Amino acid sequence: MAAGLDDRLTRYAELAVRVGANVRPGQTLFVDGDTAHAELIRTLADAAYRAGACYVDVRYADQHVRKAMIGLGPDAALDHSPLWLQTRMSAMGGNAHLVTTGDPEPTLLADLDGERVGRARMREMIEIARRQLEARAVNWSAVAFPNEGWAMQVFGEPDVERLWQAVAFCTRLDEPDPVAAWRAHMQRLDMRAASLNQLAFDAIRYRGPGTDLTVGLLPNAKWMSALFRTSDGIEYVPNMPTEEVFTTPDRLQADGTVRSSRPLALNGDLIEGLRLTLRNGRIVDVQADRGAGVVRGQVGIDEGAARLGELALVDGTSRVGQTGLTFFDTLYDENATCHIAYGFGVPEVFDGDPGDGMNVSNVHTDFMIGGPELEVDGLTTDGRGVPILRGDVWQLPE
Amino acid sequence: MAAGLDDRLTRYAELAVRVGANVRPGQTLFVDGDTAHAELIRTLADAAYRAGACYVDVRYADQHVRKAMIGLGPDAALDHSPLWLQTRMSAMGGNAHLVTTGDPEPTLLADLDGERVGRARMREMIEIARRQLEARAVNWSAVAFPNEGWAMQVFGEPDVERLWQAVAFCTRLDEPDPVAAWRAHMQRLDMRAASLNQLAFDAIRYRGPGTDLTVGLLPNAKWMSALFRTSDGIEYVPNMPTEEVFTTPDRLQADGTVRSSRPLALNGDLIEGLRLTLRNGRIVDVQADRGAGVVRGQVGIDEGAARLGELALVDGTSRVGQTGLTFFDTLYDENATCHIAYGFGVPEVFDGDPGDGMNVSNVHTDFMIGGPELEVDGLTTDGRGVPILRGDVWQLPE
Repeated sequence: MAAGLDDRLTRYAELAVRVGANVRPGQTLFVDGDTAHAELIRTLADAAYRAGACYVDVRYADQHVRKAMIGLGPDAALDHSPLWLQTRMSAMGGNAHLVTTGDPEPTLLADLDGERVGRARMREMIEIARRQLEARAVNWSAVAFPNEGWAMQVFGEPDVERLWQAVAFCTRLDEPDPVAAWRAHMQRLDMRAASLNQLAFDAIRYRGPGTDLTVGLLPNAKWMSALFRTSDGIEYVPNMPTEEVFTTPDRLQADGTVRSSRPLALNGDLIEGLRLTLRNGRIVDVQADRGAGVVRGQVGIDEGAARLGELALVDGTSRVGQTGLTFFDTLYDENATCHIAYGFGVPEVFDGDPGDGMNVSNVHTDFMIGGPELEVDGLTTDGRGVPILRGDVWQLPE
Repeated sequence: MAAGLDDRLTRYAELAVRVGANVRPGQTLFVDGDTAHAELIRTLADAAYRAGACYVDVRYADQHVRKAMIGLGPDAALDHSPLWLQTRMSAMGGNAHLVTTGDPEPTLLADLDGERVGRARMREMIEIARRQLEARAVNWSAVAFPNEGWAMQVFGEPDVERLWQAVAFCTRLDEPDPVAAWRAHMQRLDMRAASLNQLAFDAIRYRGPGTDLTVGLLPNAKWMSALFRTSDGIEYVPNMPTEEVFTTPDRLQADGTVRSSRPLALNGDLIEGLRLTLRNGRIVDVQADRGAGVVRGQVGIDEGAARLGELALVDGTSRVGQTGLTFFDTLYDENATCHIAYGFGVPEVFDGDPGDGMNVSNVHTDFMIGGPELEVDGLTTDGRGVPILRGDVWQLPE
């Protein structure tokens, strides 16, 4: 590998360890990723020990082994959460965690029985993760690793270098001082959140092609950037890249229709032209040009799955949006433009107990609704509309 | 990959699952291997689910992450056994376990501080493994996966196909019905063990170039092949290949000198021309043409490390020996010729409690002492010598 590329990987790992998870001296860093991400994961281990981690604990997932389980294993295997995996995840409390994404074989599970693929979820693991999110117990982050399979899906050819350039642009690795660039970027997003909080809107209204949706906000839920803090006060950035300011809406107030503006990669399938109808906060109808069944299956998983958990605003300055690419990876695609999520809310936006308004579910699925044609307004308590986004341009002070 | 090669891998995995670990329906199969063994491990997962495993639990080790830990981590990381790894290993009791070998990067740790490499051992894990061995709780096996790095070490060039052919020969994959060939092979080795048990020798005497060693045997320790049985009665073959019949000697009776006849790969180093002097069962002097320090470090780890735990007899019919290769992998090299081990005894050779005679240690290192010039005799209680091996030919009925 040329020195320049090696250097890029090292800088990327440094950014993930020092800004993303913000590994503190004496913490264990847990890393979860695919065997195809080994090159990045090894560099993360180096960076974490250099940052003072007391131990780096790597677990590799192998989608081929998972495929064998779904295709050939007994029913009971599908939602089995091995005790040791639960022990490991519980040990993440008070420590740091990095997850690597970038699917090396996006169609690997395509020839399996979709119903079995859907049932293959480790429920106990999801429960532990949810409790840790609620307790703000873990400083964690997700970063992607460019690889041939993922590049193939994005470009139709395995051009890993081109994907690396897009990833480097979106994660500000192309800046002379990426850490400083991230500080400035997060500060700007925090300013946006502050101006939204000052205006204390009662609801958000979305209007655009196929979309006319009004969602009620909660008085105790603030808008924020993805600069998070653990209960111990450790600042971290759970998503790299991130371009959003977001809040958790009132789970009981959402009415109208909303149409997705970009394809969504979900459970190994691609959802296109998704159209949801909501009444009193509940998704009452799911249509799509492609993949409606996957979404219908998801919103039926539990009571909260059919209600909204997140509203996120992204404007045209988004580096992800500027690439013009569909990455087929939520970490990237949700940051291209405005999105909303059905399912679990984001506990981080509440000071203290979220109370009854926040939605609770084992699902959290973001889908993209933004673009130049989407008009977003904040509605004040007296019913007045204040423009937030017009033609992908941010309308409020920042 | 050509159909023939694919088929070879599938047959190999079937052999490991059905003869090696002998995975029983309803058992969990635990698999431990290097990320470089993924192709084999995936095939093992398929084979295990086909054999009725209720779950296949794979853990990949990454020597680069381990190198980061040894090179950059704090002292406390070196012998840290993560709780979840202990939980996982404990869960192996009553279940099946496969370990894959074949070092993809044999010199990876060479530039690290040797003292830190030596200290990097998970003590709690070794303890759990030892208790499970004593309880005969796990049907397990080790199989190797040919890869470029390993082939490079064996041949000086990355000729993976040539290494595959050697592995296929040694593991009887070249037979029309490998499972039947293994049954016949193990039966023959069991016959050898039976004739040794009938003769009930009091001691074994080795004589050859640089070797004149007499080791006392235990009346309650039988000779056996590596056809093992768990406490639940599951038959399994822990090593593939295996060519040995072996026993656990009296830890207090070994006198003389012994010289290794083949190089030994140990802790990332190569030990050549090893010469041990023993008195009253204890190794009192260690010399070597190369790597004496590594062996001296090992025999000092605990009280039992300097005493013998195994005597194994292998004749010239060994397929491993017939290849004429040094594999730099104990799984193979120990099966080339007669070997002995210092450290932990083999509990399996005792019916019930081993008693005081069996050596106990956290170390078990086999080294090769056999060859055409080695004469092996059984000594009867009245001091008579009975030839067992002459010129690599088995002298007893079989």
